[in-house]
Amino acid sequence: MNANAKVLDSQQLLIHWQGHRNLTRRVIEAFPEKDLFGFSIGGMRPFSKLVLEMIAIGGPALKSIVEGTINTFDESFNPTTKAELLTKWDEETEIINEYFSQITEERFQETFNLFGQYEFPIYQNILYFVDNEIHHRGQGYVYLRALGIEPPFFWERER
Amino acid sequence: MNANAKVLDSQQLLIHWQGHRNLTRRVIEAFPEKDLFGFSIGGMRPFSKLVLEMIAIGGPALKSIVEGTINTFDESFNPTTKAELLTKWDEETEIINEYFSQITEERFQETFNLFGQYEFPIYQNILYFVDNEIHHRGQGYVYLRALGIEPPFFWERER
Repeated sequence: MNANAKVLDSQQLLIHWQGHRNLTRRVIEAFPEKDLFGFSIGGMRPFSKLVLEMIAIGGPALKSIVEGTINTFDESFNPTTKAELLTKWDEETEIINEYFSQITEERFQETFNLFGQYEFPIYQNILYFVDNEIHHRGQGYVYLRALGIEPPFFWERER
Repeated sequence: MNANAKVLDSQQLLIHWQGHRNLTRRVIEAFPEKDLFGFSIGGMRPFSKLVLEMIAIGGPALKSIVEGTINTFDESFNPTTKAELLTKWDEETEIINEYFSQITEERFQETFNLFGQYEFPIYQNILYFVDNEIHHRGQGYVYLRALGIEPPFFWERER
């Protein structure tokens, strides 16, 4: 076994995640503004709220991991327009790039108590952020289909 | 930089995927049989068809990667009961364990032409299988909510 063999490196994981974030951004754009904030199925949250959950996780979590501080989970940001939501999304894109790149590969196997509640290895926390985004975005796809709107292709991750 | 540092190793990725597969199995179980095969929203496929796509990918793809053979994508398995679908799901669980463990860590960065169409590094192909499952399972969550059924918790991955 080559000691340098690895499933993927941290830069590849960042590119993977940002590819998903590109797709999520295009799903946000695909919603009519009123449906982004108002449409839902079966008592679920509208897509804007699902996106706000993603925004409350990614950047703040990475900042906390890099700085070693325990921040509480904060979902107080409450935009009322698609433009505001997209502006925040793009700000978080830069924050994620900045902080992700400061996590040395050695740290991914370390345990971190995220938001003072989720004590798992850092690689599991980061996979959770990506998985949670895919999960909720998949729900957004159903909302779009129910609205008669064709969602972006799932496999297209580039801008 | 420690040369042994890694984001995660292949066994951790397998555990991560099988955790997701446990959850997907519980989502299948949560559907009433007739809705599993018949219910959908916005012209989408019923959940059984989404699950059959997952079944057509995971095990066959790993077998192909390990054996170095190019198999065509085959979605011909067509069960009509939940029990048949779950039996096949559990068979694939064993196939995935068997073949995944035969992929040496060196190979994850190699390119493989999956199903003769998807020429990507093996780590990207495998992340795609997991992501595709999360995406479609998230859609299944909306179907369950629309049917008035509480889905399993997203963060519970153990049996």
